[in-house]
Amino acid sequence: MNQIDINCDMGESYGRFQIGNDAAIMPYITSCNIACGYHGGDPLTIERTIKLALKHGVKIGAHPSYPDLSGFGRRNMTLPKEELKALIKYQIAALKGMVESLGAKLTYVKPHGALYNTAASEITEATTIIQAIQAIDPNLILLGLAGSVMEKAAQYNDMRFAAEAFADRTYTAEGKLMNRHRPNAVIHNPATAAKQVLSIVKDQQVISNENTPVAVTAHSVCIHGDNPQAVEILQKIEHALTHQHITKKAFG
Amino acid sequence: MNQIDINCDMGESYGRFQIGNDAAIMPYITSCNIACGYHGGDPLTIERTIKLALKHGVKIGAHPSYPDLSGFGRRNMTLPKEELKALIKYQIAALKGMVESLGAKLTYVKPHGALYNTAASEITEATTIIQAIQAIDPNLILLGLAGSVMEKAAQYNDMRFAAEAFADRTYTAEGKLMNRHRPNAVIHNPATAAKQVLSIVKDQQVISNENTPVAVTAHSVCIHGDNPQAVEILQKIEHALTHQHITKKAFG
Amino acid sequence: MNQIDINCDMGESYGRFQIGNDAAIMPYITSCNIACGYHGGDPLTIERTIKLALKHGVKIGAHPSYPDLSGFGRRNMTLPKEELKALIKYQIAALKGMVESLGAKLTYVKPHGALYNTAASEITEATTIIQAIQAIDPNLILLGLAGSVMEKAAQYNDMRFAAEAFADRTYTAEGKLMNRHRPNAVIHNPATAAKQVLSIVKDQQVISNENTPVAVTAHSVCIHGDNPQAVEILQKIEHALTHQHITKKAFG
Amino acid sequence: MNQIDINCDMGESYGRFQIGNDAAIMPYITSCNIACGYHGGDPLTIERTIKLALKHGVKIGAHPSYPDLSGFGRRNMTLPKEELKALIKYQIAALKGMVESLGAKLTYVKPHGALYNTAASEITEATTIIQAIQAIDPNLILLGLAGSVMEKAAQYNDMRFAAEAFADRTYTAEGKLMNRHRPNAVIHNPATAAKQVLSIVKDQQVISNENTPVAVTAHSVCIHGDNPQAVEILQKIEHALTHQHITKKAFG
Repeated sequence: MNQIDINCDMGESYGRFQIGNDAAIMPYITSCNIACGYHGGDPLTIERTIKLALKHGVKIGAHPSYPDLSGFGRRNMTLPKEELKALIKYQIAALKGMVESLGAKLTYVKPHGALYNTAASEITEATTIIQAIQAIDPNLILLGLAGSVMEKAAQYNDMRFAAEAFADRTYTAEGKLMNRHRPNAVIHNPATAAKQVLSIVKDQQVISNENTPVAVTAHSVCIHGDNPQAVEILQKIEHALTHQHITKKAFG
Repeated sequence: MNQIDINCDMGESYGRFQIGNDAAIMPYITSCNIACGYHGGDPLTIERTIKLALKHGVKIGAHPSYPDLSGFGRRNMTLPKEELKALIKYQIAALKGMVESLGAKLTYVKPHGALYNTAASEITEATTIIQAIQAIDPNLILLGLAGSVMEKAAQYNDMRFAAEAFADRTYTAEGKLMNRHRPNAVIHNPATAAKQVLSIVKDQQVISNENTPVAVTAHSVCIHGDNPQAVEILQKIEHALTHQHITKKAFG
Repeated sequence: MNQIDINCDMGESYGRFQIGNDAAIMPYITSCNIACGYHGGDPLTIERTIKLALKHGVKIGAHPSYPDLSGFGRRNMTLPKEELKALIKYQIAALKGMVESLGAKLTYVKPHGALYNTAASEITEATTIIQAIQAIDPNLILLGLAGSVMEKAAQYNDMRFAAEAFADRTYTAEGKLMNRHRPNAVIHNPATAAKQVLSIVKDQQVISNENTPVAVTAHSVCIHGDNPQAVEILQKIEHALTHQHITKKAFG
Repeated sequence: MNQIDINCDMGESYGRFQIGNDAAIMPYITSCNIACGYHGGDPLTIERTIKLALKHGVKIGAHPSYPDLSGFGRRNMTLPKEELKALIKYQIAALKGMVESLGAKLTYVKPHGALYNTAASEITEATTIIQAIQAIDPNLILLGLAGSVMEKAAQYNDMRFAAEAFADRTYTAEGKLMNRHRPNAVIHNPATAAKQVLSIVKDQQVISNENTPVAVTAHSVCIHGDNPQAVEILQKIEHALTHQHITKKAFG
């Protein structure tokens, strides 16, 4: 493997409420997950984020969420299957139409926050998300956690899947992400993050918080845009990848 | 003219909050304006309303609004052009994608409430709406007030336009709708409403509140679904049209 | 016991979205739980509902909820203690201030929907609610499920508690409410509901779905305002209570 | 006059969406206008902002707005008097209750954004706001634009009024604030802002954009917390006031 995709959540600002630093991050990534208005994002922000992505040749994915602006989509919510499916269809459809109105193409879908975490371990939610995506556009790719229930559900339902690993999150020995409430769950040191990316790309593994190797097969590496060190981390990754002759390239 | 379209706002319920009586009204109409989530409507309601329309062979339009759930889209709001355009694109795109996911087709767009009223008289808003529609799908038809600025803006921008008149609203001698805050602004008597529809279809006119004739050229007649007499009015219209050998048929 | 309180959720309409039939129900009840804007209710609805309660001499309680307008407060949500406490304080404070501005008094608090259910079984949520109430006004009474964790938490925290039972809900043999998704969970027959109320007041018990007696000690009986038979049920209860010389009277 | 109040909007963040830099600004001001949840702010943010104000001995005002989170309360909205009054009562009541729950006192009310601007020139809105404040607590002071319709309405309705001028906004020769869409409407240079404050306090005037003096009688000077230079401006003002032996002190 001599290439890797770098993805980041984008377009999560809402009205005058700014989150992240999209303009500074977009030049370094190859895929952007654009918020659809349910945990962040609004139509004007979506429009501007699509244009920014096009300017930098970055692939575009929809980033649907539970309906939870006040909780930024990080609150768990139990929704009936039919309602969850409709919620996800709505968000993907809105983003797809806006992307196409600007002459571009929606390539993939990555669930956000609590929806992502639930779908990573619960077959019902994972399947519902896949059905929603397929109802809107069967050519879309699902971007989700490597080795998760989402990945298995995608295979079972003949949906293209791109597996992602995290540059700036610590893994447990079992290969899960450390809970955000734990210290050291988020990696802020650019060099550490870049090292983890190289390990993912070259060795298909990460080193866990217990110093054990954990196998990870990923087509994409995720950086969190709201990490205050995001730009420095991305620069360090850029430098490390170049040095190792690894190309940044969108999956799919 | 021996045919007419009957349109009605549908899918305006929100979560557990019910508005209107969609299941009882759908059998009588030929076009339905489905709320897009900004003044009413939610993804599950949209999904179910599309299915109900398909079951009854009713044509589907998007019914975008200002972002105003608490005011049901009836509050005037001044928005920058770029923001308004993005808001409308988002809503149409969401509805279009959901309609197509069910194997159907989005045919037209009708602005809702305060947005409709503003676009009926203001060229900037009318043009912005048209640009938003054309950006999402240039084959869509704009359904709006007969003889309004919206109609002129559509002609100027080469957009197909369907003109509508109202079955259950009183007109002033100047051909405007009587303000909703005035008594008798809304017609509740089914026979009066049916008579007004016949006058629109056969004579291309309505009789104003000052008892003067007002010329109206309309491809569609609108019934308000939240009028408590809506079903009775629709039945009376059905009866009157049949008696006069006028066919109900969607425009376009 | 020759008296009982009858409580009902009120003021849950939102803008133009109507829920329930407050004007018809208010004359029959002695306590009303007024929505605070988070699952339903808006400031104007709150103002009008308070005035309606005052007109009928009905005691007023705040009815706070998770922040969940689209799910009507029926979605479970896990919130940090500090955030949940602030959310409940805000809602009670808003209602209390509005009640007092009209020369009346806020008497009690009854949690709504998923928040009620969680607090009925989880000590953390029950305690957080109690702390929020005490922070705003230690003279307020907590109205909650008879025999629940909420009742125990109130005792432990020296908070006055009023226990409620349900007129229109079926109980399991274990004394829990039958899950709403089960058939017969809601009682629609007015005679059955009235009989259950008499059994609660006179015998301190209900008959479960397995035909076994379940002990229930309640100061108040709840009727669901969105039950389409609510008014008939209330009339039947009124008749039954009068016949048995039982007085309707607010608790506390 | 040898003393002046410095006020600033605070607590406008919403969930994970941060606005302003409250912790850095609070030490320099004497009055804070806390958002009530309608244009920004949420219960947890309100709670924390109150505690921050108490820590620094800063007086607390409620900062109610039109219901407009997506537009940050800057969109004009026409609301019926009864509805506007209820909206403002709700927000003030919520804030007052939360402030008192922490052992503090709500001192004043300052309307936000479009509501402020409308009330500065429209007697109906100004009077409605005053009636809402008086309904919740007649001891509250109204903080508003010096010389505005709000000031006159307060006098007419026997409501205590504190007049404010702006440190970081340019005035026209007519004594109005320059429209935000115009260049130089906002003052970013700390020295210029400090000079304007001294001119307000010592000479009861500002110098307009046409270089003419404009009389301004103010009890308070407002700094915009979202001005990126806010902290530097405040430091410069602090320095200038100290040098001129002018004391910072809350009004009222």
